[in-house]
Amino acid sequence: MTFDPSTLKYDANGLIPAIAQDHKTGEVLMMAWMNAESLSRTLETGQVTYWSRSRQSFWAKGESSGHVQKLVELRVDCDRDCLLMLVDQIGPACHTNRRSCFYTAVRSGEEVEILVPMAD
Amino acid sequence: MTFDPSTLKYDANGLIPAIAQDHKTGEVLMMAWMNAESLSRTLETGQVTYWSRSRQSFWAKGESSGHVQKLVELRVDCDRDCLLMLVDQIGPACHTNRRSCFYTAVRSGEEVEILVPMAD
Repeated sequence: MTFDPSTLKYDANGLIPAIAQDHKTGEVLMMAWMNAESLSRTLETGQVTYWSRSRQSFWAKGESSGHVQKLVELRVDCDRDCLLMLVDQIGPACHTNRRSCFYTAVRSGEEVEILVPMAD
Repeated sequence: MTFDPSTLKYDANGLIPAIAQDHKTGEVLMMAWMNAESLSRTLETGQVTYWSRSRQSFWAKGESSGHVQKLVELRVDCDRDCLLMLVDQIGPACHTNRRSCFYTAVRSGEEVEILVPMAD
């Protein structure tokens, strides 16, 4: 069946959560949001474009920083309301310069930073 | 710093997305939603409890099926508005009996099923 972004289930704001996972290591890098148009742009260009809820605009990941995400494979979940993207991430995915946004672990009830910012 | 579920950023419905990842293989199994109370229950019991948006009730994963998710480690993202849970998943995570909910890949523009249901 040909994939059609309009067949996904978007929320009341027309958005769907998209998880980015390193296609080589399996590390979960970040989660952000897409609308149908940002997903179409992602598929057309091969580079991940999200929808920025705070700026209310397209967010071509890495456009200014160079930390682009190249789409390796798109996956859709059973309910068609969440996306998983296997990506080739250049440099850090996180705006804090860490490889992943999930750098805070909860261990024995305490928050622990488990990743340091990457060298420039 | 002691972790406090009330310090997370929940959406207008009091929910936060929670990604479940196999702690051994790195496979992303599913994404569902939690409220502060379901997260507290998860931390207290060590078994993942979501909030079911369709049923508007707590959803102790695997309560009826036995396909429980044991929490191995909780992680919080930089914006504190998304959770990553490393879990020990018993059996399939997906209600279709597949190991992961993300069993549909988009390859050359076509939807392809990449996982088959697990044997009982």
